[in-house]
Amino acid sequence: MLNFSFYNPTKIHFGEDQIHLVANEIPTDATVLVVYGGGSIKSNGVYDQVVTALTKHTWFEFSGIEPNPSYETLMKAQEIIEQKSIDYLLAVGGGSVVDGAKFIAAAALYKGEDPWDILVKQHPVKQAIPIGAVLTLPATGSESNGNSVVTRDGNKLPFASPLVRPQFAILDPKVTLSLSERQISNGVVDAFIHVIEQYLTYSVNGKVQDRFAEGLLQTLIEEGPKALHPETKADLAIRANIMWSATMALNGLIGAGVPQDWSTHMIGHELTGGFGIDHARTLSIILPAVMKVKRNEKREKLVQYAERVWQLTDDNEETKIDKAIALTEDFFQRMNVPIRLAEVEVTKDNIDGLIERLKQHGMTQLGEHSDITLEVSRKILELAL
Amino acid sequence: MLNFSFYNPTKIHFGEDQIHLVANEIPTDATVLVVYGGGSIKSNGVYDQVVTALTKHTWFEFSGIEPNPSYETLMKAQEIIEQKSIDYLLAVGGGSVVDGAKFIAAAALYKGEDPWDILVKQHPVKQAIPIGAVLTLPATGSESNGNSVVTRDGNKLPFASPLVRPQFAILDPKVTLSLSERQISNGVVDAFIHVIEQYLTYSVNGKVQDRFAEGLLQTLIEEGPKALHPETKADLAIRANIMWSATMALNGLIGAGVPQDWSTHMIGHELTGGFGIDHARTLSIILPAVMKVKRNEKREKLVQYAERVWQLTDDNEETKIDKAIALTEDFFQRMNVPIRLAEVEVTKDNIDGLIERLKQHGMTQLGEHSDITLEVSRKILELAL
Repeated sequence: MLNFSFYNPTKIHFGEDQIHLVANEIPTDATVLVVYGGGSIKSNGVYDQVVTALTKHTWFEFSGIEPNPSYETLMKAQEIIEQKSIDYLLAVGGGSVVDGAKFIAAAALYKGEDPWDILVKQHPVKQAIPIGAVLTLPATGSESNGNSVVTRDGNKLPFASPLVRPQFAILDPKVTLSLSERQISNGVVDAFIHVIEQYLTYSVNGKVQDRFAEGLLQTLIEEGPKALHPETKADLAIRANIMWSATMALNGLIGAGVPQDWSTHMIGHELTGGFGIDHARTLSIILPAVMKVKRNEKREKLVQYAERVWQLTDDNEETKIDKAIALTEDFFQRMNVPIRLAEVEVTKDNIDGLIERLKQHGMTQLGEHSDITLEVSRKILELAL
Repeated sequence: MLNFSFYNPTKIHFGEDQIHLVANEIPTDATVLVVYGGGSIKSNGVYDQVVTALTKHTWFEFSGIEPNPSYETLMKAQEIIEQKSIDYLLAVGGGSVVDGAKFIAAAALYKGEDPWDILVKQHPVKQAIPIGAVLTLPATGSESNGNSVVTRDGNKLPFASPLVRPQFAILDPKVTLSLSERQISNGVVDAFIHVIEQYLTYSVNGKVQDRFAEGLLQTLIEEGPKALHPETKADLAIRANIMWSATMALNGLIGAGVPQDWSTHMIGHELTGGFGIDHARTLSIILPAVMKVKRNEKREKLVQYAERVWQLTDDNEETKIDKAIALTEDFFQRMNVPIRLAEVEVTKDNIDGLIERLKQHGMTQLGEHSDITLEVSRKILELAL
């Protein structure tokens, strides 16, 4: 395995009815800004639980953070932060809200000219307001990592800093029972592909990382469709397994000491930026094509994936790989997400534009070998039609 | 799964030639006490690497911490801590040295009458000197948890506090190449049984925890014997997988949200305390007997262990369990550790004394169901003869 450093100091409180623990985790003398999205937390009881937990705190709120949070929206929070001398952010929502809070936290204490430079020039974050998170949608892993993606004018731009990693995260699987089927689908598929990006590369004999990744993939394959099925969709144990999988999928652990890919994400970002397609649904379209185009470079891991995750042991290598890719597509279909661009009405005519966007964003050498050039990305997109 | 909180803020630096990072992790104005054991770190180059890393620090040393570190030895460190105003401990060694450093750290700032009360009365640790660790022997997981076991007059007494969890740990697998075969054997078996204690209980449908535990068991089964084999014992990749498995086995992750057993450890401690048998070798003797005596209570997990860890899929339940226990014993034998008391010259006549010790230490309701009474422990010991 490769040398690595691993440090994840986010404190997790997991389980039913844990939201009250917010009260202990935020210093009582802090002035808190509760940051949330479109208001679903008001109908599912989460908002009330947070309000009750913050009884002894001074707090304000900022809402309206959209999926793929926009720079413009996030910058609006700066006014209340300054006015009220906010010194703690509590993100209540899914990955977009947590990602948004991270940018708000970094922008508030940014000393340069324009916080936009954090994203577009990758200026390092030197200070940030501390963040806590109450997670309502298991998917991105943002609740225990230092990553964030912000959108401006259709461009999805990532930044990362240990200073914006939430200090604590509360994960109550009961909260996820009020999610829509589409949110569950997207969340499971997003988490699944986070694992794949850190697993389906080339072997460095990282046995623990591989087994952990495979365990997460197996769990998501087993539990994901059950969370959509009428007879089991209200089963809290299933939601708990999905929620913990999604956090573990992107908290740094399974990616420590192994190569990582992330080409599916980078190509997918352009589909969201250009066509407004849900993040997870861009990934479910792109990943199978990446598997096919990079079949040779990923051969050893594809075979391992076929054998260990899909229990395909009888066939020869080629058949195993074929079947594993087909089963991956079948899993995505059972999760009700698209696997081809045609399903989201993106056509051959759109590919030039997508390639242009990749070029603009410097995405010209993607993947674990940096060998996914624009030409290879074009092949991937064509195969995904 | 059960509700849980998980918080592990130990920063890990893993890989070849990482010991120099000690320099960055300890504040430069700290006065450091380097704590180590019998001096093997002087022959394998680790001491020199630590000295080089501490060039810019003020530091002193305290050596002589023995396996199963004794209260008397550890208390000797208090003098130098006071004299030199030590405010950082660097533990350089295996689990015993790290465990010892934890007690030294807690005892130094203990405000009560006698630090012995931390162990014997379980007085809470309210302050401790910060600790860093350079690990030389993968086994106990002590490098990233808050647990410690200290021995006095043949009594092994545990204590735990988040305040003694190392702030950082450096894991260089190359360092483990100088270990004796016995140390490797013991380390692999110790880590294996740490996983079993948190896995082989009853199911709470914690799918991630189960898969992670199974992944660690499979890794240790695959890599352990190779680390002893003449042709592969110098293979650094094997050592790296063992080292990372041992840390992950007891850093709190796989045990979060699931029931835990620990009866094998508690009974094993009496064998070490009473007869000086290596910790891991007490576990390899006791575990198979625990599996047999608690076969019914552990049935569901024993079957799962048989199927997933040992790939036993064709037989009926009873045969699967029989074979899984036999394969566990076989694994221990391949790791050159005993599986029966006879091998360490403990006989039927010693059982009364061992039961008396368990009673003295309050170990009268062990296991995940608290149903391993002294009578059941007697059965386990008899079956282990």
